Amino acid sequence: MERFERVIAEKLNQELADVHPLISGAVKYSVLSGGKRLRPHLVYEFCRMCGGRFDDADSAAVAIELIQSYSLIHDDLPCMDDDDMRRGKASCHAVYGEAVALLAGDALGSLAASVITNDKNLSDAQKVRIIAIINNLSGIRGMIGGQVLDMIYGESNNPYRLIKGLGEPPCPTAGDIERMYILKTGALLSAACQCGCICGDENVAEETLADANTYAENLGLAYQITDDILDVEGDENLLGKPLGSDSDNGKLTYLRFCSIDAAKARCEQLSLEAIAVLQRYPDNEQLIDITKKLLDRQK
Amino acid sequence: MERFERVIAEKLNQELADVHPLISGAVKYSVLSGGKRLRPHLVYEFCRMCGGRFDDADSAAVAIELIQSYSLIHDDLPCMDDDDMRRGKASCHAVYGEAVALLAGDALGSLAASVITNDKNLSDAQKVRIIAIINNLSGIRGMIGGQVLDMIYGESNNPYRLIKGLGEPPCPTAGDIERMYILKTGALLSAACQCGCICGDENVAEETLADANTYAENLGLAYQITDDILDVEGDENLLGKPLGSDSDNGKLTYLRFCSIDAAKARCEQLSLEAIAVLQRYPDNEQLIDITKKLLDRQK
Repeated sequence: MERFERVIAEKLNQELADVHPLISGAVKYSVLSGGKRLRPHLVYEFCRMCGGRFDDADSAAVAIELIQSYSLIHDDLPCMDDDDMRRGKASCHAVYGEAVALLAGDALGSLAASVITNDKNLSDAQKVRIIAIINNLSGIRGMIGGQVLDMIYGESNNPYRLIKGLGEPPCPTAGDIERMYILKTGALLSAACQCGCICGDENVAEETLADANTYAENLGLAYQITDDILDVEGDENLLGKPLGSDSDNGKLTYLRFCSIDAAKARCEQLSLEAIAVLQRYPDNEQLIDITKKLLDRQK
Repeated sequence: MERFERVIAEKLNQELADVHPLISGAVKYSVLSGGKRLRPHLVYEFCRMCGGRFDDADSAAVAIELIQSYSLIHDDLPCMDDDDMRRGKASCHAVYGEAVALLAGDALGSLAASVITNDKNLSDAQKVRIIAIINNLSGIRGMIGGQVLDMIYGESNNPYRLIKGLGEPPCPTAGDIERMYILKTGALLSAACQCGCICGDENVAEETLADANTYAENLGLAYQITDDILDVEGDENLLGKPLGSDSDNGKLTYLRFCSIDAAKARCEQLSLEAIAVLQRYPDNEQLIDITKKLLDRQK
């Protein structure tokens, strides 16, 4: 989306004027390095579905992408996934060092809130609801909660194995993994969809927000299970990484609990449930199209 | 303040219900481990000075202390100050590991916003102003900006020395150090004072907020310079650390630029300026008392 790339670059430039080039460089390096921009796309489309214009959705779209960027910077740090590459480029800490990367991630969290509070199109009531949703769903009961579960269910970097006195690590079930995926990925997708609704209609019904949440949770879960399937039977060239790298890295995946055919059937079911939610709303073609493409992807 | 300890424990328990005990444990371990609680104290006193009740200030006081806690957890991480001790106890990452400490810090940032958005005493307009101030002053143009400057002015952990291609590290002046101290410490103190004003009076004048900011910047700067003086001629037993540890750790201090007498004179001047601001307001005895005690401390 050309519009979004222009808007996010403009807002970053405004917020980072007068900031030391080392940290503004690290922030821009991470935020303006592409990516699918799925979350902004969802903000805009749910805004439109609720009767709003793209202008109304700009700041929420940017804020949520900044949160996504901060989570990727922190995820890549040596104490987390220890990943020196991100989207085919050196990751933030590989270029700027761990300390600057840590602070760049921290800074993005507060920039996201500033982008919302500084917006002139939104009412105070909209701002408060948007900030509440973003923080709730990116926080300890959402995305961060999912990252914690991912760590304590995995083999590598498991705090139960690293730290004495924590006791035995938990033994997750397939349901626990689904819950972890919904928190880790579905929660921020849900923030995107719900904030889009609020941007589009200040008085949007709670029922619509609940529908947006159901859609996003199904999408997020199907997205993560699709990732697990691609890690087993995808195309290495399209994926840009060797097959089996998740299980080699000690990550617990959904396929520990069921056959690949059962995982595909689960994705199909989730995808139908997600689309069923959309079909209750007008002007849904774009969203249905995004949903199908995401779950039918090869990388 | 007994009241504050009760309020922050209650709010944390509410926000952390249903959260995995590993991460809620890490959060509570860090937040409920004491400290001077200076920032909450300032929120309450500025609220009172502007005509409000303590009830009105509870959530802003908690939010700002959560931000302070997150910054301490991240500051102590191995890639930052690499400090295994905090207030005489093992620091968060020393107990829970780096990854959990990183996520606990991240979680505190969003919890701070949630505490404000969930408050039933504040209007939407107050919430937006409070969130804007906290994020602006704890972010890249405030506290985090100060931490970046601290790093690039110091000897150890300086990204200019660690990362190739960044060029020569800057050579700071005494004015640069003052600016860094104001950002690193004054900014969050300013958030505390300004948010206190907004909690106390929804329609507080911009001039009052500017006064609160001037007071806090003077206090923060004097506080940091006092730290530098104590590091040279304090009492090791009261400080709980050996004299000279800052310069031994490659930290740049104010005393690189002037004599200890000149530093004391600068503190005296800043303290008088801070108190002069307070004297324009009624019911200022408590605040004047706090200010004098802080700058006359032995540890």
